[in-house]
Amino acid sequence: MSQAKRFLSDNTASVCPEILEAIAAANHGLEVAYGEDPWTERLDEVLGEFFGTEVRAFAVATGTAANSLALANLAPPYGAIYCHPEAHIAVDECGAPGFFSGGAQLERLEGEHGKLTAEALAALLDGHSVTVHTVQPAAVSISQATELGTAYRPAEVTALCEIAHTHGLHVHMDGARFANAVTHLGCHPGDVTWRAGVDVLSFGATKNGAMAAEAVVFFHLGLVRDFELRRKRAGHLLSKSRFVAAQLLAYVESGAWRRNAARANALAQSIGEAAGKRLLHPVEANEVFVDVGAAGKSSLRAAGFEFYDWGPPASGAARLVASWDQDERHVEALCAALAAI
Amino acid sequence: MSQAKRFLSDNTASVCPEILEAIAAANHGLEVAYGEDPWTERLDEVLGEFFGTEVRAFAVATGTAANSLALANLAPPYGAIYCHPEAHIAVDECGAPGFFSGGAQLERLEGEHGKLTAEALAALLDGHSVTVHTVQPAAVSISQATELGTAYRPAEVTALCEIAHTHGLHVHMDGARFANAVTHLGCHPGDVTWRAGVDVLSFGATKNGAMAAEAVVFFHLGLVRDFELRRKRAGHLLSKSRFVAAQLLAYVESGAWRRNAARANALAQSIGEAAGKRLLHPVEANEVFVDVGAAGKSSLRAAGFEFYDWGPPASGAARLVASWDQDERHVEALCAALAAI
Amino acid sequence: MSQAKRFLSDNTASVCPEILEAIAAANHGLEVAYGEDPWTERLDEVLGEFFGTEVRAFAVATGTAANSLALANLAPPYGAIYCHPEAHIAVDECGAPGFFSGGAQLERLEGEHGKLTAEALAALLDGHSVTVHTVQPAAVSISQATELGTAYRPAEVTALCEIAHTHGLHVHMDGARFANAVTHLGCHPGDVTWRAGVDVLSFGATKNGAMAAEAVVFFHLGLVRDFELRRKRAGHLLSKSRFVAAQLLAYVESGAWRRNAARANALAQSIGEAAGKRLLHPVEANEVFVDVGAAGKSSLRAAGFEFYDWGPPASGAARLVASWDQDERHVEALCAALAAI
Amino acid sequence: MSQAKRFLSDNTASVCPEILEAIAAANHGLEVAYGEDPWTERLDEVLGEFFGTEVRAFAVATGTAANSLALANLAPPYGAIYCHPEAHIAVDECGAPGFFSGGAQLERLEGEHGKLTAEALAALLDGHSVTVHTVQPAAVSISQATELGTAYRPAEVTALCEIAHTHGLHVHMDGARFANAVTHLGCHPGDVTWRAGVDVLSFGATKNGAMAAEAVVFFHLGLVRDFELRRKRAGHLLSKSRFVAAQLLAYVESGAWRRNAARANALAQSIGEAAGKRLLHPVEANEVFVDVGAAGKSSLRAAGFEFYDWGPPASGAARLVASWDQDERHVEALCAALAAI
Repeated sequence: MSQAKRFLSDNTASVCPEILEAIAAANHGLEVAYGEDPWTERLDEVLGEFFGTEVRAFAVATGTAANSLALANLAPPYGAIYCHPEAHIAVDECGAPGFFSGGAQLERLEGEHGKLTAEALAALLDGHSVTVHTVQPAAVSISQATELGTAYRPAEVTALCEIAHTHGLHVHMDGARFANAVTHLGCHPGDVTWRAGVDVLSFGATKNGAMAAEAVVFFHLGLVRDFELRRKRAGHLLSKSRFVAAQLLAYVESGAWRRNAARANALAQSIGEAAGKRLLHPVEANEVFVDVGAAGKSSLRAAGFEFYDWGPPASGAARLVASWDQDERHVEALCAALAAI
Repeated sequence: MSQAKRFLSDNTASVCPEILEAIAAANHGLEVAYGEDPWTERLDEVLGEFFGTEVRAFAVATGTAANSLALANLAPPYGAIYCHPEAHIAVDECGAPGFFSGGAQLERLEGEHGKLTAEALAALLDGHSVTVHTVQPAAVSISQATELGTAYRPAEVTALCEIAHTHGLHVHMDGARFANAVTHLGCHPGDVTWRAGVDVLSFGATKNGAMAAEAVVFFHLGLVRDFELRRKRAGHLLSKSRFVAAQLLAYVESGAWRRNAARANALAQSIGEAAGKRLLHPVEANEVFVDVGAAGKSSLRAAGFEFYDWGPPASGAARLVASWDQDERHVEALCAALAAI
Repeated sequence: MSQAKRFLSDNTASVCPEILEAIAAANHGLEVAYGEDPWTERLDEVLGEFFGTEVRAFAVATGTAANSLALANLAPPYGAIYCHPEAHIAVDECGAPGFFSGGAQLERLEGEHGKLTAEALAALLDGHSVTVHTVQPAAVSISQATELGTAYRPAEVTALCEIAHTHGLHVHMDGARFANAVTHLGCHPGDVTWRAGVDVLSFGATKNGAMAAEAVVFFHLGLVRDFELRRKRAGHLLSKSRFVAAQLLAYVESGAWRRNAARANALAQSIGEAAGKRLLHPVEANEVFVDVGAAGKSSLRAAGFEFYDWGPPASGAARLVASWDQDERHVEALCAALAAI
Repeated sequence: MSQAKRFLSDNTASVCPEILEAIAAANHGLEVAYGEDPWTERLDEVLGEFFGTEVRAFAVATGTAANSLALANLAPPYGAIYCHPEAHIAVDECGAPGFFSGGAQLERLEGEHGKLTAEALAALLDGHSVTVHTVQPAAVSISQATELGTAYRPAEVTALCEIAHTHGLHVHMDGARFANAVTHLGCHPGDVTWRAGVDVLSFGATKNGAMAAEAVVFFHLGLVRDFELRRKRAGHLLSKSRFVAAQLLAYVESGAWRRNAARANALAQSIGEAAGKRLLHPVEANEVFVDVGAAGKSSLRAAGFEFYDWGPPASGAARLVASWDQDERHVEALCAALAAI
């Protein structure tokens, strides 16, 4: 039987060689645990250089932990967090933001292609008065790349952050696919984050070649507050912290972040082109959303392609994700199959 | 200076004589505290007769407590609670459902005149698959009367409950203005609750003549579970419990619930008629929503009428609430002023 | 059948006339709800005069709410709260401090007759280093009067507060029986609170003659922070707030607080004297703890006296509480019965 | 400068070759994420064989996560969890049990050498009545090996579990150093767990040679309940789950668990023997507690030995931990230094 042609998620990917080697290289001798190792101690500096500004960075093992810990630092238990209805924090984290924050409420805000707009945010915030009875507007969370495979332009992020800050809200960016977005945009990592006003970023590496490594990167240093205590009591301070830090350092310093993202993006572009007018959203990262009809999905699955429905199974929409280590022949086969639908 | 003509909320009302007398009548001698008094011990029976079925009823002092404690019994910390965007639990309780449930997520569902529809609920529930990554659909919460002053018909509640139960969700009804709705509908209290499938009701008395008394009424007795423990640890088990129970008993047994509601409803009808085509929603309880323009609002306020804006202050929408003890002359004056706009 | 001779708790007491009249007097016309009424607006001033310093005071309906809301303002979710093993917050509130704070941990500290000592607190705090792995010492909570019916002297409170403040902890006082303690001590209410260093007090009125009224009184105004939001989302902001505020005002302004406490204390003194060497703790409020043996308890119960065991039922310890409205003949009968054991 | 002679913690250890190789071996191709990979799917079977009974096992990355997730499944938010004052959950997890459970309360119970006894537990549970006002006894948590380096005998665990179960409590075992205890005892892993009545075990591998891998192992399958949802919303469901499962499989299947533990234990034995009468607790795992006086600690540190104070720095107590990969020459040097004090 032939190997599965998996386009389910970039979470199915393997670990890239640069990162596996870094793990092995860190594996010598006794090192102080819980973040006092030399690898962890370099994180702020290395990520600071990467982003071009001073940062405070904290390693965790999952994206849900990164997002929720970040948001719990921005929003009080009676706070409101504004996000897109498709946001990972709203639909894919089993209520984690409510858990970590102690009850903060998600307020959903529609926007085309998975993006919030400054105009819609302003209208929503201006439309409600804040009293002791309401949840207190606290944070905006945007995804870069979005959950629909699109990328915010720097000016879009800037406009959103201005509205948010004007209203006293902080801005979080879920960067589970940050490298894919930045690589697509061709901009500097700082251009869509701190230069545009983002206060804290969940900087994902796992999907793009790491084993289990994400960094919560604070650009607004005043918001760090009690982050380390919250991370510890959530069980997200890894004891042998050198191994997660080593992944993040290798990811950035070896250039794997860009190489892996560039490859995945390029494969997604091919798929998007093959999908033609069946494409539902612009392909600006490594995800492709298509409407191939229920019959189209069946025929793709019959041909051995694995992917997730997008929306109700009976609909024709599907999500196709290209991983950094996706087999090129599988992509070619998929393109051919799409073109034939 | 003349007395304020307040149409802010039925929370501004006084306590009706039947209830104040019941409080005084309960005030003799030493009675066992924390719900083991003779008044509390009659609650199940008296409310059971009121609703025409066996119930378990628990007294608390506020509507937010009633709603949140009820919902925390229906939804786990990773649960989803479906409600209208205008629901009191979503916009007026400072995140209480998230607090009491330990993080359950509110999912908003649009509907005309403040009502959810069975069709919209079915579409939403069918449109998403439930996995370990998603919040788990747990409860639907509807308001009777709604936050826009309308009342669900028994058949509407029945249809909603059928969809909810089919999908494994329980149904909560926020009855802060339950008496107003039932009085308007002219139906039996059971017709829009347990007979229609409602599992638990926040049965409000405070707005309609009590001092501070609401009952969480379980029709689905299997859902009571650990309610008493949750009430206690939330500080909502009153020590001198006879006084809150006495309010609820008097409210029901004296018929004050219907008399008070009927009067407030009738006053609201007059206001609604005076508003004519400026009316935004049908008047089916004791709240009137009008669009009188920003200038209209200013002129009403200049004439001494107090009320809340509905939506942004710059809009023309206003909410006018008639209380059970509203001064009839104030209502007449308001009707005249509305007619003159 | 003769009336029950109840010495179960001061929670069994009725409402004193001064307070019931104040409730009735507040019951006229429409008043703005949720704390913007004239009664609530006088609370800060009246309690400020009572304590002899500027305060911020917030009314709630239960002691558990008062304690937990106060503590949640002093301790973060990863904080440690130090208290006596017998503290109400530790044994009688069903985990409320953990709920309201989002998980703060109670650390118990032994002390004779229900009192913490400065020495023991210092030893405990000095004995542990605080790291990212430990809960963070945040607050000390003491009860005045204590759960064993004793009263802290001003110097004892001062010494405790000094140790607490030196270590960066805030001090909460559970004053469910505050009037009883102050009346026994014969001191000014400020002497055992702010002058001694207490930051926030749960000022109880319910047990001593109110219907359902407690005030959270902040002496350290900087600690008020988001108290109002936390109260609201916990369902403890009463809509018809005038009625709870009116109780507190009457309690203080009519002098009922001292009259009621003085009577209850005097009755407890008689009981304590009758108990003689069977007394377990000094009687410094309105509670009497005795060891009358299992047989003694049985004979008291056979004679119609109601009271709670203290500790295991098989032990001989019992708690006898005198309420402000206790029947003097019942007290005399109890004294005679105790003397006869 | 010579290499640090670290006896700080077994968390400082490296990853053993068997486990690093297993990680590398798992690193090929695209695998379904979030626990649907072939490695994770073998966990129940492999750990079931290891323990000699049917189990449900869930991988997480940290011991704090394992403990807190397990306890949150055993204790409701208003539950009481009984543990030793030195328990890791009580002193080293920054309040995690309170966070994950939504507020459950830790109740501490003294016991010699870090062990709870059945007698003390019975006395505590029998001494308090359970009412709506108290936290509800829910779980007992014991550490194996204990935090003081001792190991419960099978009969001791059995006796504790009998008392716990008789009172309706479930039993959790914190097995961060489970391999060390079992190796010392020379018993079967089942003998001190399910055969003795343990309901759920935090089965630690990280300290004993893994990179970041712990398993929550349910022996009482009915307690699994919603564990997977709670793990997900806490951010502890790893996306590339094959890598954490591969660690656990290799740990058990290669025999590394026993080899590593045996080596660490033997080194600790040498240290304990060298300490002679300065030993504070029997050495029954890989930790050694000594009282060498403040001067003794200074001289050891001056000689390059790293370790933690146990208790206040000014005391003479120290903890010395032997890791699986500890340099034997460092151990010899430490023994010599101890003997010379």
